[in-house]
Amino acid sequence: MSLQSKQSEQGGQQEQSAVTIIGLGPMGRALAGAFLDAGLRTTVWNRTPGRDRELVGRGAVSAPSAEEAVAASGLIVVCVVNYDAVDAVLRRDAVAGALKGRTVVNLTADTPGRARDAAAWADGHGVRYLDGAIMTPTVTIGTPDAVLLYSGLEQLYREHRPVLDTLGGTHTHLGEKVCRAAAYDIALLDIFWTAMSGYHHALAVARAEGITARELAPFAAGIGTILPAIFEEVAEEVDEGTFSGEGNPLTSAASTMAHVVHHSEAHGVDAGIMRAAEGLARQAIGLGHGADGLHRVVELLGRKRGG
Amino acid sequence: MSLQSKQSEQGGQQEQSAVTIIGLGPMGRALAGAFLDAGLRTTVWNRTPGRDRELVGRGAVSAPSAEEAVAASGLIVVCVVNYDAVDAVLRRDAVAGALKGRTVVNLTADTPGRARDAAAWADGHGVRYLDGAIMTPTVTIGTPDAVLLYSGLEQLYREHRPVLDTLGGTHTHLGEKVCRAAAYDIALLDIFWTAMSGYHHALAVARAEGITARELAPFAAGIGTILPAIFEEVAEEVDEGTFSGEGNPLTSAASTMAHVVHHSEAHGVDAGIMRAAEGLARQAIGLGHGADGLHRVVELLGRKRGG
Repeated sequence: MSLQSKQSEQGGQQEQSAVTIIGLGPMGRALAGAFLDAGLRTTVWNRTPGRDRELVGRGAVSAPSAEEAVAASGLIVVCVVNYDAVDAVLRRDAVAGALKGRTVVNLTADTPGRARDAAAWADGHGVRYLDGAIMTPTVTIGTPDAVLLYSGLEQLYREHRPVLDTLGGTHTHLGEKVCRAAAYDIALLDIFWTAMSGYHHALAVARAEGITARELAPFAAGIGTILPAIFEEVAEEVDEGTFSGEGNPLTSAASTMAHVVHHSEAHGVDAGIMRAAEGLARQAIGLGHGADGLHRVVELLGRKRGG
Repeated sequence: MSLQSKQSEQGGQQEQSAVTIIGLGPMGRALAGAFLDAGLRTTVWNRTPGRDRELVGRGAVSAPSAEEAVAASGLIVVCVVNYDAVDAVLRRDAVAGALKGRTVVNLTADTPGRARDAAAWADGHGVRYLDGAIMTPTVTIGTPDAVLLYSGLEQLYREHRPVLDTLGGTHTHLGEKVCRAAAYDIALLDIFWTAMSGYHHALAVARAEGITARELAPFAAGIGTILPAIFEEVAEEVDEGTFSGEGNPLTSAASTMAHVVHHSEAHGVDAGIMRAAEGLARQAIGLGHGADGLHRVVELLGRKRGG
């Protein structure tokens, strides 16, 4: 039994069982596809026309305007390039009027500040608002590998959870502070892109020594494998405010980093990322924390607010 | 049956079944402990005396000098702070003379250039030489989790493999070019410390938004979990010289990085690492590769030699 028929039996409110997608980039199309696969009445709209053909072929309703798209469903999922694009669509009078009393789940990626601003606008216009972030690529949507984060009123999240669950994977409500999903998103993207940049740099360093990417990859993957347990361990110490060097003090981390820098630059390979990382380590040493672990830099970075 | 008794039966050469450890820092002591546990006749020496007490209690022979330590075994494993320290011990006439015809396995961490230099010195002094790198912490030594890399003459590696295997875990011979173990080591340390630095930065950014390290850690661990497969995939493309953006082009990676930079700095959190990463991405875009994936920067970094 599809969610739609189930909800129709329960309440008969067609709007509640329907969903509208605003934004048909690769991610928006993936979201719409998953809703269609779950049998939901799915209305779609995109600023640039022509992106909805395949979805319409699968049963989606193509709305001629954003206000008509919004009016078609009780739940409006927004997934566009950034919050400037969100505002350009939602903050027109006709759309704002149509949104009144409905729920917007904004899965667009941007900063926590923008999420707070969007929630304040929604609140001022009688729009029910949840912020969210999609942590996994488009291909994971509708599969057990999808990871989605949400923040905002828990009751609102619970109400729409049956529909959101049709996107597959793991859904986590991070709390009622509406900016939390965006804050997690930015922190996790920070980790991902920094790690990828380190890997790319290592591939350039390896190549300079005649080592191919395929040769290095299995060992690099081995590093990836040990990171989750180390991340959890470091988190305990950071929250406790303990920073034990455990046989790997800042001084030796900094000297390893210096090896990487000198070796890279001797091969004509820029080492700006590692220079910045080493700089933070050297500062922490200079502040008298040389025997601590490298995670002491968390305090250094956060000292204006957290330290 | 211990390795020692096995080798004694085979050849009766006590020197072949014995091993000497030069350097009794935490890692050197772990190596000596594993050899002792395997029943090998283990001689130990450290420049600063007094580090061998616990090992002697477990059956190690404490040598009064480096030359006597070297003379006690056919295989000498060296694990000190860096190659300056290696040279200070081995390149004295008495020690060099004692080393003649014996095998040095140098597990000290340093750059590929220093490994080449050490091998050239050994060659000039009739010393058989293998270079190596230990990729895992001291606690893994003697367990299945140890990861050791070697480079140098394969025949020499095979000859000593039975003794080295008693250190546990996975041992890989990377080829006869003696600098390869050090080159892998530096590339893998590059990945590890860059990833850790990204994580530490993310913890500071999260804290500025009121998110604890323990709250972020499970999601950070999730990022770690997906890295190995991505590393392998990127390696294929880098070796092929293809750089498909696959729905995640450089332009969008750079704009995500800019979000991280601006958001960090708005909270008074230094973003030098991500600024450096974003700078490379922007350069690659400026060179006309905006539709490629971020791994295009490997070419950019390596362009003097590899590109």
